[in-house]
Amino acid sequence: MNAMTTPAPVTVIGLGSMGTALAGAFIAAGHPTTVWNRTARKAESLTGAARATSVEAAVAASPLVITCLTTYDDTLEALGPAAAALAGRALVTLNSGTPAGARRMAEWATGHGARFLDGAVKNVPSAVGAPDTLLYYGGDKTVFDEYETTLRVLGGDTVHLGDDSDLAALYEMAVGSTLLPALLGFFQGAAMVRARGLEASTLLPYSAKWFEMIISLLPVFAKEIDSGDYTEAASSVGVFHAALAEERTLGQESGVDNSWQFPMYDLVERAVAAGHRDHSVSALTELLTRTPR
Amino acid sequence: MNAMTTPAPVTVIGLGSMGTALAGAFIAAGHPTTVWNRTARKAESLTGAARATSVEAAVAASPLVITCLTTYDDTLEALGPAAAALAGRALVTLNSGTPAGARRMAEWATGHGARFLDGAVKNVPSAVGAPDTLLYYGGDKTVFDEYETTLRVLGGDTVHLGDDSDLAALYEMAVGSTLLPALLGFFQGAAMVRARGLEASTLLPYSAKWFEMIISLLPVFAKEIDSGDYTEAASSVGVFHAALAEERTLGQESGVDNSWQFPMYDLVERAVAAGHRDHSVSALTELLTRTPR
Repeated sequence: MNAMTTPAPVTVIGLGSMGTALAGAFIAAGHPTTVWNRTARKAESLTGAARATSVEAAVAASPLVITCLTTYDDTLEALGPAAAALAGRALVTLNSGTPAGARRMAEWATGHGARFLDGAVKNVPSAVGAPDTLLYYGGDKTVFDEYETTLRVLGGDTVHLGDDSDLAALYEMAVGSTLLPALLGFFQGAAMVRARGLEASTLLPYSAKWFEMIISLLPVFAKEIDSGDYTEAASSVGVFHAALAEERTLGQESGVDNSWQFPMYDLVERAVAAGHRDHSVSALTELLTRTPR
Repeated sequence: MNAMTTPAPVTVIGLGSMGTALAGAFIAAGHPTTVWNRTARKAESLTGAARATSVEAAVAASPLVITCLTTYDDTLEALGPAAAALAGRALVTLNSGTPAGARRMAEWATGHGARFLDGAVKNVPSAVGAPDTLLYYGGDKTVFDEYETTLRVLGGDTVHLGDDSDLAALYEMAVGSTLLPALLGFFQGAAMVRARGLEASTLLPYSAKWFEMIISLLPVFAKEIDSGDYTEAASSVGVFHAALAEERTLGQESGVDNSWQFPMYDLVERAVAAGHRDHSVSALTELLTRTPR
């Protein structure tokens, strides 16, 4: 916080675990903070916040209104009674959803005279407020510029992706595409060592290092994907293909169910059939694209 | 290398990109290095190595023989003519395969009088020899102890997992379970931003951070899985479940094919049906286990 500025008043609507963490960060940073939740009980644990008695009062309390509900539909429903109070305010939505949902939300908000920004918190509630925590936003740059110091209270790595209101939702889904697959991969490994009588925790140093290795490969893959040139393969489709027969039978041998990976093996086989055997494994991107380049 | 020791002679059989990197590291570290490959031409680029004229001669050249072929079957086939020469030597196999394959390999090798160690290089060829590169081994501890300094030439993070000859294969598959899913997740994200006219490279800082976040969660998940107590959910099955409807329609909206993820969505739905809605997402491990605890 700059010593020259007074912390801006802010309203947080939606007090799930993430919304509570957001409000807590604002309170800790000295922002006059108004909160509202459909279930009033959830607001009671937040010491230092003003509890609004209605969503209209919550919106009216601050020039900057941040919502943290589950979906855009939830957000639209919660804000409905407060639509008239939005005029002239900055609305920032932080929920999951598709780019189309974000555009619908933006249309509704700007239609009621609000300036609109949609964002995503790329971490768990306990990481809110940390210097390295990432949040990104898409939409009205004037809102971002005016409230950047305030938004940065939620995480030191705060980014404006661009003026389109659906960019955060787009990146949220694009970046998030790895979450369930990566977690299930780890869970399968855990099931595998446990089936052998070993603890899942024995995997930790190796799995962490493995993910670090994957991170180190991403710039190479991104370059291949952006150029469409997959011929300089550090790790080829063929290498993955050679392991498929064993991967498919692994489930029976190891006592785990790896059938959720079968469509991925099919993708590798289709890539070989499409002539990508000697190409980088990143050529699989072409098979995930409905409109080929 | 300890100044008191003379670098041990070593033989490397199999000169694909990884085998070539291994042999190169031994040569650079001053080890008398003998190489053999089915296709002799591949050995020609390795300056400083003795090129054996047969696999028997390659095995006979060193007390420590390291193979780097694709599968255990390939290794058995390549070593077949040299079986008699293995007696009294240490054999280290570095290939992909299942634990059963490693046990079959161990039986064959010890049956011919070799001491046996099976290992895995957990990185790409260009990382061989780096201080942080991980290799782990399972099998005869006397081989590991005797040649630890030599094996450490291949990567500074060199670990003996235990005396069972199939442990490296087990961990290789358990740790590796995340690779294809995590990569496809990134490729899907890349396809998604590209369908919007943006470069895959714009994802890099966010995807790297996302994987770092996943790494930070693994110890919590491992603890939950090992204890079987999923009730303190930082990230619940229900949170993933709430996003499924949007995830399933995402493909149509975003111009990417995400149908390879559908079996994962099914797993989440089955977990909710099994009563895991409020449990940690790591409870999905229970559904991947064929013999429940």
